[in-house]
Amino acid sequence: MDKKIINIGLFGFGTVGKGLFDVLQKIKPDNVNIVKVCVRNVEKHVPEAPELEFTNNADDIFNDERINFIVELIDDAEAAYDIVKRALKAKLPVVSGNKKMLARHMNEMIQLQRDNDTALLYDASACGSIPVIRNLEEYYDNDLLISVKGILNGSSNFILSKIFNEGMNYAEALKLAQDLGFAESDPTLDIGGWDSLFKLIIITIHAFGVYVQPEDIFTFGIGNMNEHDIQFANEKRRRVKLVGWAEKVGEDGLVLSVMPHLLSKQKYIYSVEDEFNGVVIKGLFYYKQFMFGQGAGGFPTGSAVLSDITAQLYDYRYQYKKLQSPHQLQFTNDYKVRIYYRYDTPATLNLLNFSTIHESYYSDTYKYVVGDIELSQLQAQADKLRESDVFICIYPED
Amino acid sequence: MDKKIINIGLFGFGTVGKGLFDVLQKIKPDNVNIVKVCVRNVEKHVPEAPELEFTNNADDIFNDERINFIVELIDDAEAAYDIVKRALKAKLPVVSGNKKMLARHMNEMIQLQRDNDTALLYDASACGSIPVIRNLEEYYDNDLLISVKGILNGSSNFILSKIFNEGMNYAEALKLAQDLGFAESDPTLDIGGWDSLFKLIIITIHAFGVYVQPEDIFTFGIGNMNEHDIQFANEKRRRVKLVGWAEKVGEDGLVLSVMPHLLSKQKYIYSVEDEFNGVVIKGLFYYKQFMFGQGAGGFPTGSAVLSDITAQLYDYRYQYKKLQSPHQLQFTNDYKVRIYYRYDTPATLNLLNFSTIHESYYSDTYKYVVGDIELSQLQAQADKLRESDVFICIYPED
Repeated sequence: MDKKIINIGLFGFGTVGKGLFDVLQKIKPDNVNIVKVCVRNVEKHVPEAPELEFTNNADDIFNDERINFIVELIDDAEAAYDIVKRALKAKLPVVSGNKKMLARHMNEMIQLQRDNDTALLYDASACGSIPVIRNLEEYYDNDLLISVKGILNGSSNFILSKIFNEGMNYAEALKLAQDLGFAESDPTLDIGGWDSLFKLIIITIHAFGVYVQPEDIFTFGIGNMNEHDIQFANEKRRRVKLVGWAEKVGEDGLVLSVMPHLLSKQKYIYSVEDEFNGVVIKGLFYYKQFMFGQGAGGFPTGSAVLSDITAQLYDYRYQYKKLQSPHQLQFTNDYKVRIYYRYDTPATLNLLNFSTIHESYYSDTYKYVVGDIELSQLQAQADKLRESDVFICIYPED
Repeated sequence: MDKKIINIGLFGFGTVGKGLFDVLQKIKPDNVNIVKVCVRNVEKHVPEAPELEFTNNADDIFNDERINFIVELIDDAEAAYDIVKRALKAKLPVVSGNKKMLARHMNEMIQLQRDNDTALLYDASACGSIPVIRNLEEYYDNDLLISVKGILNGSSNFILSKIFNEGMNYAEALKLAQDLGFAESDPTLDIGGWDSLFKLIIITIHAFGVYVQPEDIFTFGIGNMNEHDIQFANEKRRRVKLVGWAEKVGEDGLVLSVMPHLLSKQKYIYSVEDEFNGVVIKGLFYYKQFMFGQGAGGFPTGSAVLSDITAQLYDYRYQYKKLQSPHQLQFTNDYKVRIYYRYDTPATLNLLNFSTIHESYYSDTYKYVVGDIELSQLQAQADKLRESDVFICIYPED
């Protein structure tokens, strides 16, 4: 391997950007440097790393001739889009951490990489410190995958762990997650399942070679879960986990969803606790593989970003092989799932047309059904369901 | 990626070789073919795959101009050594599944790769279907690793699972493992810990950049475990697992061992059951990562071998970066461990000089101590311990 030097222009200095800096300070590699950092508020960040050069002008990065690598770790998806696009067009290799931007613009990002013969890597974005994408790209490339199921969001999983293991209520658990820095002050992205959704979309491209728009995938978070739901899960000796799920169905169908699942102890992801992430990959040859690791925090994520960066030292690129496969799967919501549905009024019950009801309970304060329903129905009513006082969980029989 | 065609000369057509053939039959890739297979007994294998060309003469493989890739999947370590060496010298890329050969000749194998500018890959050899080596090479290359602990042998783990989950006795469990094809008719390699040892040596090279000879590492299997040991574990609510363990100690020390461990439920590898393998990687930045998957069987291992083969399509090679690191760890057995030691006579108790005894039990039929002892002492008495009717388990306090 020739001795390349990676000179980074870094965008963003939040938890992950600062984490990358801290990791570099610890291991002091002789071939990776941060040359300049672009942030919105220079004054705020200078004291955190006085040895770094900060700017609030993206041009200062792109016009710096020393810089041969862009790392984008900012929150704003639209700004991230502009930065990554500009970098790729300038034929600079890029590492991006912005899941929302990647999930939304993946087709264009793949095209930009091809047109400009340069690499965009984002393993760190998809599952914190678990190298899911690279393993799907390189190691499971020959297997015929059946499903990928994962706990993809550390913050919401932390909250669920505190509720189910330590008996906290939802508000206490959310507050603790925020105090510990595992949840944003606006937790909608995590709690509502959106962060998991973006990751699922990215993973699905590499696992199944199918790109699906976020709007088309049924997404329901844990924000509506109440004490009745928790009690229901406990009585059934299950735990609620927020699960991103992609599965081949029938001859060439592919279903995707982000929803709470009522998981029994036999499931691997039942035991994924706190801010950890875990992914179960099922394939025809491998049966089951399970990968598990920290999904949040400056060090794990900063270090995962560094792995994406140093992959450039040996010219690593995603190949997107499965997108070109002649046997393309077709995304569909025509698939029946068994759910637990807690509702508040007859009107919210009537939002959904169950094909079978297995269980039904009714009282003044708590009403639910367990029944079979098409994912397409849930998706058609998604906005109304999210606005109502209802809770939905996949409730598998096993 | 240019359209390379891999034309394989295959050595061996046992479970893994046949598994590779079956996987290729299923996915029918257009760039990977088996051209010819060298086996000891041609007549035996022809009916299993009439479409393949078999030979019992290695020269028929090496003189076949169509063949541009060697896959070695035979049991005999010395023959494997000759084949792999000859292939590398002929500048052919090689995939090898022979852990024993690799563990014993790793230095020479690395040198042969360099001298002949060709690749030797062996991820499939180290942990069945879990891509441990590639992840250590590519993804954890920047992390400062603390430890790698794993269940590396599917056969012995299958036996332990049947004993601890289904109450079988040792003989029944071994028989079942043999009937199901998870254990060899001579199970010494699996049960005695030697298979795990070879894998641990290979993993340690990629995890810590240190190569240690098999003879220098304390290795003790599960063959001596009796009903008292099983009862002891059950009473303490622990399970016995055969664990390969590498850990950085002190400033620059590295300890290695293959031994049974008495694991409590909190440990990730406690839950690795049946023929599965599981590895926990601890690093300074990532905290803990856990990878888990099938460790035996034709399909999973055949598919893992195919992943090693297709890695050649993008010229993948192990870099052995950590072997060249300026901060080399030193292998040592000067490290105290807490063990459960069941012995039969005062003479076998006196084989070991415990620095502290935490617990001691004595009856006519069952005698044990729990105490602290240097690994170097265990290693000094290793042959005698293996020949005596004693059982040894790491017994951590937590």
